[in-house]
Amino acid sequence: MTEELSGGDLHRLRQLNALTVMRTLRGGSALTLTELAQRTGLSRASTEDVVRDLLERGWVAEAELKVGTVGRPARRYRFRADAGRVLGVDIGGHKVLALLSDLDGEVLHSERVGVDPSMGRMERLAAVDRAIAGALAGAGVSTADVWATGVATTGLVDGTGRVMLSEALPEWTGVDVAGHVSRRVSGPVLVENDSKLAALAESWRGVARYAKDVVFLLAGLRTGAGLIIDGKLHRGFGNAAGEIGALPQVGWIRAQEHLKAWTPGPGVTNIFQAARDGDRKAVAAIRRYVKDIAVGASALVLTLDPELVVVGGGFSRSADLILGTLRAELDRRCIRTPEVRASALADEGVALGALRLALDHVDAALNRPGELAAPSSFLA
Amino acid sequence: MTEELSGGDLHRLRQLNALTVMRTLRGGSALTLTELAQRTGLSRASTEDVVRDLLERGWVAEAELKVGTVGRPARRYRFRADAGRVLGVDIGGHKVLALLSDLDGEVLHSERVGVDPSMGRMERLAAVDRAIAGALAGAGVSTADVWATGVATTGLVDGTGRVMLSEALPEWTGVDVAGHVSRRVSGPVLVENDSKLAALAESWRGVARYAKDVVFLLAGLRTGAGLIIDGKLHRGFGNAAGEIGALPQVGWIRAQEHLKAWTPGPGVTNIFQAARDGDRKAVAAIRRYVKDIAVGASALVLTLDPELVVVGGGFSRSADLILGTLRAELDRRCIRTPEVRASALADEGVALGALRLALDHVDAALNRPGELAAPSSFLA
Repeated sequence: MTEELSGGDLHRLRQLNALTVMRTLRGGSALTLTELAQRTGLSRASTEDVVRDLLERGWVAEAELKVGTVGRPARRYRFRADAGRVLGVDIGGHKVLALLSDLDGEVLHSERVGVDPSMGRMERLAAVDRAIAGALAGAGVSTADVWATGVATTGLVDGTGRVMLSEALPEWTGVDVAGHVSRRVSGPVLVENDSKLAALAESWRGVARYAKDVVFLLAGLRTGAGLIIDGKLHRGFGNAAGEIGALPQVGWIRAQEHLKAWTPGPGVTNIFQAARDGDRKAVAAIRRYVKDIAVGASALVLTLDPELVVVGGGFSRSADLILGTLRAELDRRCIRTPEVRASALADEGVALGALRLALDHVDAALNRPGELAAPSSFLA
Repeated sequence: MTEELSGGDLHRLRQLNALTVMRTLRGGSALTLTELAQRTGLSRASTEDVVRDLLERGWVAEAELKVGTVGRPARRYRFRADAGRVLGVDIGGHKVLALLSDLDGEVLHSERVGVDPSMGRMERLAAVDRAIAGALAGAGVSTADVWATGVATTGLVDGTGRVMLSEALPEWTGVDVAGHVSRRVSGPVLVENDSKLAALAESWRGVARYAKDVVFLLAGLRTGAGLIIDGKLHRGFGNAAGEIGALPQVGWIRAQEHLKAWTPGPGVTNIFQAARDGDRKAVAAIRRYVKDIAVGASALVLTLDPELVVVGGGFSRSADLILGTLRAELDRRCIRTPEVRASALADEGVALGALRLALDHVDAALNRPGELAAPSSFLA
């Protein structure tokens, strides 16, 4: 090869170098030029050039010196996570939760609005509006600062962000969630099923962080599943992956009945609390519920052979009463029983997954060669 | 950025350019320097340098002129698929099939040795040896020419190429297939489950070529499944993906019984032929068989929501009697019914998948930057 490089080769190399530096700084800590050159494998001169370019375009900032630094330390550079904002919204049966974060996913404000499964679609959409407005106001940002919004909803979602079918909230079938939210924020709106997004959250910030293949079970007033395959959310060809509950043989349809059949005693309304207090009928009902859930979970596990099963959703707070039976049932049915863990994201998992969906959209745009304009033109 | 590139940057660019050219020529037709420069986006000068380098190292050859070419046409360059050889071996219940191919997967010789499910492991391994020796002799190559060997076997295979569990051939449980075959060939030996490799073959050269997510059903004397997810074979954490048949609720365990319960009439031993000839009991038995298979297939489809279901294995020749009922049953149970097609690879699918496994290993080595030594040193 000659040492003469054509203009096209040089341009290509520059793009690659800029993306390499962005990827290295993105989500990590601030680095000096020397550290950046080491981690990227670029020459010191190329690193300097790329950083100067990214500073000018507004993607990178000089990090502030730590208090107590003496002498004249080398300058450090960081990704400008504050260049933009994203929103994650969970539209549930009992609450709407909106999280507003910077580009690193650092949550700046969280806004919760109570709703009810019996509400009509207009009431629920009004609650969505209040949650979004509250999140924006709470963080002191305008809709124009929002680069992307992720929305989680119950039910099957089509490619345009409309709810195709919702078993849990029949009124919700047919709602154009993306269309509605798009009128409240700037930037693209991505809508996805709540079980899928809760799975995404576990793999981002939950107990599934280090696992490649994960089966997530949403256990609560409804039962659902989300799959992480090879580190990525698996949606399926028609966005209907994880819907094993539709198969009558797996028992998810009747599972809830066991819990409903339990009669609350005086002063006790929570079956899990009753079970902890020694109510034998409550213990037996929960056991029957978990046994039914376990058939579907076994079908998912036998299909995918995941590394990990995560139990999330409302019932994950009562994991002490669920995981033992679930593990035993999986053991009985599966060729290899994966690790089974409870979610630690409490009831924010779904909204965090919606936030991650928005961040994934931003990252995809950032990684597309040739699109690294200034952040201000990101939405243009 | 300055126009001065460090030695490290230049070396990096050269490696990238060499791999870009290799990827463009690999598996495609011969190209002129002008065409190569266009397709790779490299400058003419860089392309010339890379090609000269690859010619010297033996990875690329000048393509022969077509007969009848007049004038002085531009030289064309091709990937040297004849630089090495790979083997694909299917160890089945009724046959051992060994395919020997070049690095493009062009089969040069196919060797078939009949076996029997009742054979012991030593007899079956002797048949494997005969098939491999026959494939090598038939193609006129020595074991030293074989860069990699893929082997398909029934049962669950562990990470070292040993059979952990074989339901179909109990004698086969515990056999160290990789260890045995390694003593017959040079280069690495990769062993994988037959349903998984048949799925891989469909996605390489079969009806699943253009699909990203595929459920492959091996329908024959045994029922098995292999999954292609995002274009890649999904193995699972413990290499046990697709084993949905282990769940009693899905009906695969009893499915065969319906076929076995049919009594052959005088002169007719094949239930599918009998069904075509109008034997009502044969038709009903096949229908019951497919209905049982369909429950497991539905569980796979509801879990993954694939684009396509492929039916392969011995019974795929009788797809006319199977696919209609299978489609109707999937329709009844699944949220979205994928396309259902029969394999067109006849009984060579599994062996082709084994060949692809060997080629994947070679490709991975070729794509590893810094390993592009001469082909002759590939096995060193």
